[in-house]
Amino acid sequence: MSDLSKGAAWMRGEIIPIGEAGIAVTDWGVTHCDIGYDVVPVWRGAFFRLEDYMDRFVASVAALRMDLGMERAGMVAALGDMVAASGLRDAYVAMVAARGPNPVPGSRDPRDCKNHFYAWCVPYVHIVKPDLAEKGTSVWIAKSVRRIPADSVDPRVKNYHWGDFTSGLFEAKDRGFETTMLLDHAGNVTEGPGFNVFAVFENRLVTPENGVLHGITRRTVLDMAHERGLNVQARALPLEEFWTADEVFLSSSGGGVIPVARVDDRHFSNAAPGPVARMLRRDYFAWMERADLRSPIAYP
Amino acid sequence: MSDLSKGAAWMRGEIIPIGEAGIAVTDWGVTHCDIGYDVVPVWRGAFFRLEDYMDRFVASVAALRMDLGMERAGMVAALGDMVAASGLRDAYVAMVAARGPNPVPGSRDPRDCKNHFYAWCVPYVHIVKPDLAEKGTSVWIAKSVRRIPADSVDPRVKNYHWGDFTSGLFEAKDRGFETTMLLDHAGNVTEGPGFNVFAVFENRLVTPENGVLHGITRRTVLDMAHERGLNVQARALPLEEFWTADEVFLSSSGGGVIPVARVDDRHFSNAAPGPVARMLRRDYFAWMERADLRSPIAYP
Repeated sequence: MSDLSKGAAWMRGEIIPIGEAGIAVTDWGVTHCDIGYDVVPVWRGAFFRLEDYMDRFVASVAALRMDLGMERAGMVAALGDMVAASGLRDAYVAMVAARGPNPVPGSRDPRDCKNHFYAWCVPYVHIVKPDLAEKGTSVWIAKSVRRIPADSVDPRVKNYHWGDFTSGLFEAKDRGFETTMLLDHAGNVTEGPGFNVFAVFENRLVTPENGVLHGITRRTVLDMAHERGLNVQARALPLEEFWTADEVFLSSSGGGVIPVARVDDRHFSNAAPGPVARMLRRDYFAWMERADLRSPIAYP
Repeated sequence: MSDLSKGAAWMRGEIIPIGEAGIAVTDWGVTHCDIGYDVVPVWRGAFFRLEDYMDRFVASVAALRMDLGMERAGMVAALGDMVAASGLRDAYVAMVAARGPNPVPGSRDPRDCKNHFYAWCVPYVHIVKPDLAEKGTSVWIAKSVRRIPADSVDPRVKNYHWGDFTSGLFEAKDRGFETTMLLDHAGNVTEGPGFNVFAVFENRLVTPENGVLHGITRRTVLDMAHERGLNVQARALPLEEFWTADEVFLSSSGGGVIPVARVDDRHFSNAAPGPVARMLRRDYFAWMERADLRSPIAYP
């Protein structure tokens, strides 16, 4: 038996150690970043909101005009088998649709490629370390780059075009910030590497609607906020308005609700997690335990 | 001996068949499209303008803040050894700088990654089939997408962020066009998948300057045009002006100068290659034979 505790991959029907999982250097998934993907969390032995993540993944595959030669049920089974084999109780699970290599020598026609599905899982990833999330993290607004516009690459089709995020991350890390957030070309707040952004104004939440991924955790936050009787607005969020927020937090499948204590040189909610973010963070971990939102994994 | 005639790769010091060359699915080169690359042509047994391609590649690596742990001379040797082993006399040779997997579990810090170099080669690729290039090819201006702006992802740092091109290619292929060309958000002509664009107005050439890769073949065209006494302008090229051109052609390391007979429903130069494009196409193939621009490969 191979050691799968550091992670496993499902490649062409085989479950293998994550360290052995590769993709051809000539796959358009590499050479053209021609990949759609999604990430579903596994928490305490069950997928959370699996069907919602699958809905989005299947929509991405359709938008990319890929034919993976697999039904949705087959992909769900692959994910479950892989996580079960890994033994991981808390996991970051990626499902990937790649355009594939082009078997016609020299062809530049994407329709010639043989598309394929693969998946991999590793121990659960917190995009911000839990201790930092508890204290409130720090976010640097990227100055050298703007978010890739939706009419260049659609962010709702979850994709690996992260050059703008990576430039922002370098800026952030050089200045001692934990992560970065990008503006669009009109000066509105968009999103960051792996998360959506929320601003809190008293009992009102505002989160960007266009030019961003419609995160499943973002949706969970909107659901939880509704249940809590908060007012929710998904719309453009100009930076000037953002600066007047009482609280700021991030949402991600990698850590849930992540309070922000500082953006650039400004402190929010007295440089600590604000009350709304704290409440929603607790709610999120409670929702992750809800039986109606969980798909338990059949570990051996 | 493995069969390398379909292509070879240089991976971690080993030369292997192209079909066996893979990159880890967790490499940021895949998951964040965090890759710089370049492509140098081999023609009749020699690299063409190798040092110019290397200059650009090294500049890309520096811009991406990668440390490949290899000197330029080592990379040049790797490329030469690989092509020699393949036996290919005419080849498309890719050199790649990838961010690498992040060895720190859950880290989102690009500075933690172990960057690496690899290379691969396949038989020479014509981005437009030579018979089509001789007749003048067809180009569709993408309607659903605009080129990723330079302040999101810098196109001068040659990269695999091709989602916009791929959307344009689908549009083009669906309509029976050979390739696609993208506009920027201000309505200027930019570039296409793997090529720069030139418009000819009598004895004057205009090619976009900003928001595009500064192709080495583009530079060769500018050099050849200068020698031919043509007037050259590298500047913004609004679509309205483009439509009034006498001739249009593309430049690419994958085929040199490629005349365009048709863009959307408009025919250029009587639906055939124009005289300037024909002349420069002949010149390019002649320049590819120039000893001062060639670096011969030491085949076994």
